[in-house]
Amino acid sequence: MTTSLATLKNLATQLRIDSVRSTSEAGSGHPTTCLSAAEIVSTLFYAEMHYDPKNPQNPDNDRFVLSKGHAAPILYAAWAEAGLFPRQELLKLRRIDSDLEGHPTPRLSFVDVATGSLGQGICAAIGTALNARRIGSEYRTYVLLGDGEMAEGSVWEAANVAVYHKLDNLCAVIDVNALGQSQHTQFGHHMDEIAARWKAFEWHTLVVDGHDVQALLNAYDEARATKGRPTMILARTVKGKGLSAIEGKDGWHGKALKKGEETDTAVAELEKQMVGGGTTPEIPGPRAKSRPDGAADYSKIPAPAYKKGDHVATREAWGVALAAVGGADPRVVALDADVKNSTFSDKFEKVATGRFFENFIAEQVMVGASMGLAARGAIPFPSTFACFLTRASDFIRMGAISFANVKFTGSHAGVSIGEDGPSQMALEDLSMMRSVHGCAVLYPSDAVSTERLVVEMAKHKGMAYMRTSRPKTPVIYGPDEQFPIGGSKIVRQGANDQAAVIGAGVTLFEALKAYDTLKADGIDIRVIDAYSLEPIDAKTMTEAGRATNGVLITVEDHYAAGGIGDAVAAAVAPAGFAVRRLAVGEIPRSGQPDELLDRYGISAKHIVDAVKQSIKK
Amino acid sequence: MTTSLATLKNLATQLRIDSVRSTSEAGSGHPTTCLSAAEIVSTLFYAEMHYDPKNPQNPDNDRFVLSKGHAAPILYAAWAEAGLFPRQELLKLRRIDSDLEGHPTPRLSFVDVATGSLGQGICAAIGTALNARRIGSEYRTYVLLGDGEMAEGSVWEAANVAVYHKLDNLCAVIDVNALGQSQHTQFGHHMDEIAARWKAFEWHTLVVDGHDVQALLNAYDEARATKGRPTMILARTVKGKGLSAIEGKDGWHGKALKKGEETDTAVAELEKQMVGGGTTPEIPGPRAKSRPDGAADYSKIPAPAYKKGDHVATREAWGVALAAVGGADPRVVALDADVKNSTFSDKFEKVATGRFFENFIAEQVMVGASMGLAARGAIPFPSTFACFLTRASDFIRMGAISFANVKFTGSHAGVSIGEDGPSQMALEDLSMMRSVHGCAVLYPSDAVSTERLVVEMAKHKGMAYMRTSRPKTPVIYGPDEQFPIGGSKIVRQGANDQAAVIGAGVTLFEALKAYDTLKADGIDIRVIDAYSLEPIDAKTMTEAGRATNGVLITVEDHYAAGGIGDAVAAAVAPAGFAVRRLAVGEIPRSGQPDELLDRYGISAKHIVDAVKQSIKK
Repeated sequence: MTTSLATLKNLATQLRIDSVRSTSEAGSGHPTTCLSAAEIVSTLFYAEMHYDPKNPQNPDNDRFVLSKGHAAPILYAAWAEAGLFPRQELLKLRRIDSDLEGHPTPRLSFVDVATGSLGQGICAAIGTALNARRIGSEYRTYVLLGDGEMAEGSVWEAANVAVYHKLDNLCAVIDVNALGQSQHTQFGHHMDEIAARWKAFEWHTLVVDGHDVQALLNAYDEARATKGRPTMILARTVKGKGLSAIEGKDGWHGKALKKGEETDTAVAELEKQMVGGGTTPEIPGPRAKSRPDGAADYSKIPAPAYKKGDHVATREAWGVALAAVGGADPRVVALDADVKNSTFSDKFEKVATGRFFENFIAEQVMVGASMGLAARGAIPFPSTFACFLTRASDFIRMGAISFANVKFTGSHAGVSIGEDGPSQMALEDLSMMRSVHGCAVLYPSDAVSTERLVVEMAKHKGMAYMRTSRPKTPVIYGPDEQFPIGGSKIVRQGANDQAAVIGAGVTLFEALKAYDTLKADGIDIRVIDAYSLEPIDAKTMTEAGRATNGVLITVEDHYAAGGIGDAVAAAVAPAGFAVRRLAVGEIPRSGQPDELLDRYGISAKHIVDAVKQSIKK
Repeated sequence: MTTSLATLKNLATQLRIDSVRSTSEAGSGHPTTCLSAAEIVSTLFYAEMHYDPKNPQNPDNDRFVLSKGHAAPILYAAWAEAGLFPRQELLKLRRIDSDLEGHPTPRLSFVDVATGSLGQGICAAIGTALNARRIGSEYRTYVLLGDGEMAEGSVWEAANVAVYHKLDNLCAVIDVNALGQSQHTQFGHHMDEIAARWKAFEWHTLVVDGHDVQALLNAYDEARATKGRPTMILARTVKGKGLSAIEGKDGWHGKALKKGEETDTAVAELEKQMVGGGTTPEIPGPRAKSRPDGAADYSKIPAPAYKKGDHVATREAWGVALAAVGGADPRVVALDADVKNSTFSDKFEKVATGRFFENFIAEQVMVGASMGLAARGAIPFPSTFACFLTRASDFIRMGAISFANVKFTGSHAGVSIGEDGPSQMALEDLSMMRSVHGCAVLYPSDAVSTERLVVEMAKHKGMAYMRTSRPKTPVIYGPDEQFPIGGSKIVRQGANDQAAVIGAGVTLFEALKAYDTLKADGIDIRVIDAYSLEPIDAKTMTEAGRATNGVLITVEDHYAAGGIGDAVAAAVAPAGFAVRRLAVGEIPRSGQPDELLDRYGISAKHIVDAVKQSIKK
């Protein structure tokens, strides 16, 4: 029971008609990029892929990732034709009252990750392919790219990592229609030049006519039979295929046909392309049942074993905690980018066999793969130096739009890393992660809070970020202390606090030193550990404002923009309080950590000065 | 007069000794990655490259970019041996009182761009190579990469773009020492696998023994003789070469030898490798004089031609202005990433022949090449959708550390783009750019201010960012109005303003609508156009706080974190004012622009409500 060639051709035609109609109705969108992909989509959805069209989230369904997200209309049409929802819904494309958005997002049950920023879907597909191994499923992952995407470096990161992991359950198809948005792509229809690249990157590479249904089916057969490496099918296509007035013409990217005569003429032309054989697909169901994830048991994790006064870097405590969380929750996986011996993710690798994925120095695919893994039920912890997470900033942005359950960690925060210099110092990571909607932003100061917060991150539903530090810092919390996301800790408090100093990470210890100095001068201050910056503990911060007549001082190993100061300021604004910010105010240089804290105005001395100046007023 | 082979060998040995000594003295750093590169560096610096060692900024010097920035010690040693500064200075490596930082920055006269975030130097090298054409110079660009860098997608973006531009004045060398930070690289010493990739990407590709001085010289000869495409020299090397205890061993990345016996033994071993022939290099001078840049004449640019009430998108006004600036200043160049017909950089392309560089959909190399161009005197304007500038976030970060004179533009800001949906909406770009130290952040609302600000950007020394919008907005300023960076405009003002509403871009027009509504209700408000967010006009904002009893409301088509609200809050904090922020507070969806402004709380109606609530208190 398989869909006939004639039916696959007709389904391609139907997908074309649906794509034209929906974009015309919307008055915007990308019909021509759908038209070139119609046979690729019809053969995948109605002959090749094994899935339950009524339950897109079945864990054993083959996965389809639309890396060329602007072809959303044909993706929506494919699921409508598969029977998931009525075709009539397609005419709500891009409307505020519909989830059929301009580019796909996981608001739709059949979308794993949001796409529309090109070159990302193939990275996410690596994640869904890795996940099949994780759960012991036979499902395969298919990803459809546009040829313009090959300009994005992330595609080549994915190419390397897929080969490294020998992902023979991954099949990519590139819709080579030779036209980008503004002009011809770099390689046009030079299929040999494109194929040479993929072959050199060691993918099993095929070139086919992307409008030839039988050729596509043969290619999928060959992909399935290929062991030990992924397959790339380069499908030569024509942009706008099926509409004689538009086919292969530049200047038609992202343009809907005009509603009325232009659209009616186009649909009529397409309808004439129907052949005998019907349009009812026969979709094969999932191949076999995978093993379900084992139950998570966080009660297994003992209380932190550190003693007050121990000196431990939070990055190291993070590694220890991650290994423990991995033992308690089989869904937890870790990914790193050739710095596992600096971030300490190697502690996880050593104990969680098969759940650690090395990406070499390729942060984009690391994050993209994490998104794919998360979409299929894993809880990924990607880690690298915090400054290098900026390399994946656009992926993190799309992760938020994907509502991805990914737990980022950036080590080596701020000038306190010392001699390596500014290129290795994260001074904008808090800003980057605070502007990721829905992401918890955590910044522990000692080993106990780090360990507790790693557990909180893992349990938290949604994105989370932890910033860890390079230098060893003293343990200040007891083993029973709890650190809920959204909380803070008042570490020092007096009966008559004249100012509140709010820090996190290394600056908390500068604040504690300042406390001692000021105490000796007869000045009481409150010291607050803002270990959770998003959400932030507005109540405690506001109370501190009230207690100190509004003398709130933040101190952070970060630039002022978007960091702790801005977070606290926004939290206390409703009560009318303003915040004085101590932060790094210039491009730093190499030096010893303590020298740098002092030079850039965030050491105890500067806090003491700021308190004295502020309370004078 | 050329340096002999024996001397080149000895210079390599001397560079090794210098690298070991300086890192041992510093107590940190990456000696082993210097040791593998010693012959590559000695042959380039003392035989192949044409330059004036006393004047690293000579415009006709060959350029050298150390993409593997952690090999900084050998770069510093190379310039010391070339005679730029005394060798004794090398022992100040990584000290706070020295510019010889852990990774190179342009604080040093011989560094064009900061490196240390891997995979970026080769992108910058494209910029310096393009610049040679721009100024008609015969200088060549050499870039040294580590093999680990090939994991970064940006390297493959560079590979494509260099071929597209036929950069035969660019020669890259990869130091294939087979060891990354945490383990072997993906391809180790499989030179064939690596070579296959570069050949497929159409570079002229050579494999040599990277410790064979003659083989390296021959390879450079071949590179120079190769026309129409760049050359890649894959140099097989041994990490730690020269030190028998370390050579080729894992676990020695980023580790200095211990001062004292360990270092003395190593230096002694290296000194024994000296052969007859001396260590005095013969460095060939620059080949020929290029033509200097013509004088910029901004007085040529006429006043904006728009009339009040015209409807023009700021992105289009930006394109018009950029074309005008290109006519007035020959140093101005533009780069885009396959969206020139949306950003309107195509207006520049049409008039500034030879100064527009297409990068296809490759934002990282676009920004990296901009950094290289800027380092050599050009004024680059890279542009794409603002959300896709996040793809190059790490490059922008390094651009700040490079003090790069680059002028970024991001179009299609915020939910006001409408139906394309969240993947295309920049809602964190202001946050990203405000956290780039030293970057002017501009956000014009109408065509006149856009045109004026493009001129200001071009004249401004240092990084600048302009955010432009998709929808057409009315022209509200007269042709003679001036818009200095750091200023703002009070657009509405009364004798008894009860609140100040601060917006920019599309929200300024919502504030103006709110003004009319409130005026009809007898409530006067002040409306401020915050077209410059960094630096921000703290004086005008603070005065508005004083005039309104501290009722300051910001409204922005951006997430709250790091945007207009945070910028204004930081500006008015010293006066004790707090700010109420209206901003996008959830992941938006597709819809019509006006629907979305209203749904996400930033339309005139929400401003009216916020004003009424705030003045009630």
